[in-house]
Amino acid sequence: MRVSESDTLGAIGEVATLSRVLPRLTPAAAAELGPGDDCAVVAAPDGRFVVTSDMMVHGPDFRLAWSTPFDLGWKAAATNLSDVAAMGATPTALTVSIAAPRGLEVSVLEGIADGLAAACDALAPGCGVVGGDLSVSEVLTIAVTALGDLGGLSPVLRSGARVGDVVAVSGVLGEAGRGLAVLFAEGVDAYGMPDADAAASARERHPESVAAQLRPEPPIADGRLAALAGAHAMIDLSDGLAIDARRVAAASGIAIDLDSVALGADPLLALEGGEAHSLLATFAAGTALPGGFRAIGRVVAGAGLLLDGAPWQRPSGWDPYRGWDGARG
Amino acid sequence: MRVSESDTLGAIGEVATLSRVLPRLTPAAAAELGPGDDCAVVAAPDGRFVVTSDMMVHGPDFRLAWSTPFDLGWKAAATNLSDVAAMGATPTALTVSIAAPRGLEVSVLEGIADGLAAACDALAPGCGVVGGDLSVSEVLTIAVTALGDLGGLSPVLRSGARVGDVVAVSGVLGEAGRGLAVLFAEGVDAYGMPDADAAASARERHPESVAAQLRPEPPIADGRLAALAGAHAMIDLSDGLAIDARRVAAASGIAIDLDSVALGADPLLALEGGEAHSLLATFAAGTALPGGFRAIGRVVAGAGLLLDGAPWQRPSGWDPYRGWDGARG
Repeated sequence: MRVSESDTLGAIGEVATLSRVLPRLTPAAAAELGPGDDCAVVAAPDGRFVVTSDMMVHGPDFRLAWSTPFDLGWKAAATNLSDVAAMGATPTALTVSIAAPRGLEVSVLEGIADGLAAACDALAPGCGVVGGDLSVSEVLTIAVTALGDLGGLSPVLRSGARVGDVVAVSGVLGEAGRGLAVLFAEGVDAYGMPDADAAASARERHPESVAAQLRPEPPIADGRLAALAGAHAMIDLSDGLAIDARRVAAASGIAIDLDSVALGADPLLALEGGEAHSLLATFAAGTALPGGFRAIGRVVAGAGLLLDGAPWQRPSGWDPYRGWDGARG
Repeated sequence: MRVSESDTLGAIGEVATLSRVLPRLTPAAAAELGPGDDCAVVAAPDGRFVVTSDMMVHGPDFRLAWSTPFDLGWKAAATNLSDVAAMGATPTALTVSIAAPRGLEVSVLEGIADGLAAACDALAPGCGVVGGDLSVSEVLTIAVTALGDLGGLSPVLRSGARVGDVVAVSGVLGEAGRGLAVLFAEGVDAYGMPDADAAASARERHPESVAAQLRPEPPIADGRLAALAGAHAMIDLSDGLAIDARRVAAASGIAIDLDSVALGADPLLALEGGEAHSLLATFAAGTALPGGFRAIGRVVAGAGLLLDGAPWQRPSGWDPYRGWDGARG
């Protein structure tokens, strides 16, 4: 069978698709058995493992007009690796299930595989894809499960913050949110619909912001370093600093007071921009902050989020069933 | 907020939906930390774990006109538990990600949760849902990852069958395939489209077959018993006995010779009916077959599948990108 860039899943079928996609994936060092049997077998030297699952759906979560297939694979891996890191664990393995229209070009799945492999290699060396599933759907959908090893340390929960702790963050704040705003403003055609050419131009004009949104680089190794440094609480910043800091405050029964001057040139963007996939952690006062962590506030008695000592209420939250307007494509 | 059967996801939002769905799930005995943080933490006393992921998509994999929400949750759990059992492992935990239209009634997700919990309780007591994700999609999509513990035994692979082994099966053959044929023939309206009333009538006329298709009961505990009895090879029968037996033959470099008289009243249906989710295993000759296993053939030198000593070629296989006709609903 002749194989070309324009082959579709329906034209070449599942077996040929897998034979083109699987070799592009990096093996996982912890995989005692990789893809091909009923299950994979993954080493869990700690005697426990951490697990997180996430789903990305074309439309609400990404658009092929904005993201390259490589971007999609990268982001699917990066966001799940970040959840593993936020427990203080080291990512060991991913499973990836993809449902795709039969008319989709196989090269899209190849690009996704390349992005998955590159993100693992760059952000969590040794981690790789050990299994998954291919299915057919009108809506391109990517479901990832990430697994990690705690290496003898207790998991770092959202609920461990203590009054007096330093609140610190590792990673970029706000840029991913700015990137999404750029794409909605400039990555669209005259009718406001996502457009690949417009998005490419927007990406050239705002490379850092758009890259932060489409190809995030969460500080995965810093999650482990935080655990080793004795972090009391930690969370992956997925819905924005304000919302996620409030989650730590609620789980820990304390309040978090952030310093606006520590939040960069645009504190509002830092507080409200989603999908930063940076790590927020709290440490006992006086702890030498590890890796890329920098102090942005402190834990105080009370409830909720404060900014420079005053209660900070916005935004109220992101809801997948309310926040996405399907009519906008 | 008043809550009723007819509430939709879009009307009540993610937080309220989760507050109605999560309490219906059975906790996993192995969960050191359940849903609510960035990851769950699951015990892996063996120092390894097995992992499998699968995706069910409305249309190719199920239809709400045929399956109740409870059926969907049950089948999503059962099929993944069966993959864990086929390694000789004991299921410990599931993650479940669901993408659903915002207009879907919350009661559908409640029914799915009830089915997930009931299947775990009935088929793999102690196993439960430890995490997952809710997202929005035009196409109802359920992605499950199942995890299991090997309890000190080697995983039972597809590749371990040896010439002279007895080939045995535990669980029902053919009924699930018959059930699907019944639904396509009788669970449709005058235009051939899936229809709930017609399906309910068909289910009354063919309760065992339709139940085998929509609410399968794979012999999960027999996977562990097979491993303890020293099974050389094992596989979950998902695509039909003929296709899956050929997979064992190919992986092991042997041939499998099945006895038609051991395949029941309709050997062809037993060979070709998909989604049986029974277990096929091979054991050294003379092994006392454990649990519900019964001999159906033997491992011989050669390649591929034989029936009563003669090569058996059909069917060629199932392909999600070719086998589903979206126009049939």
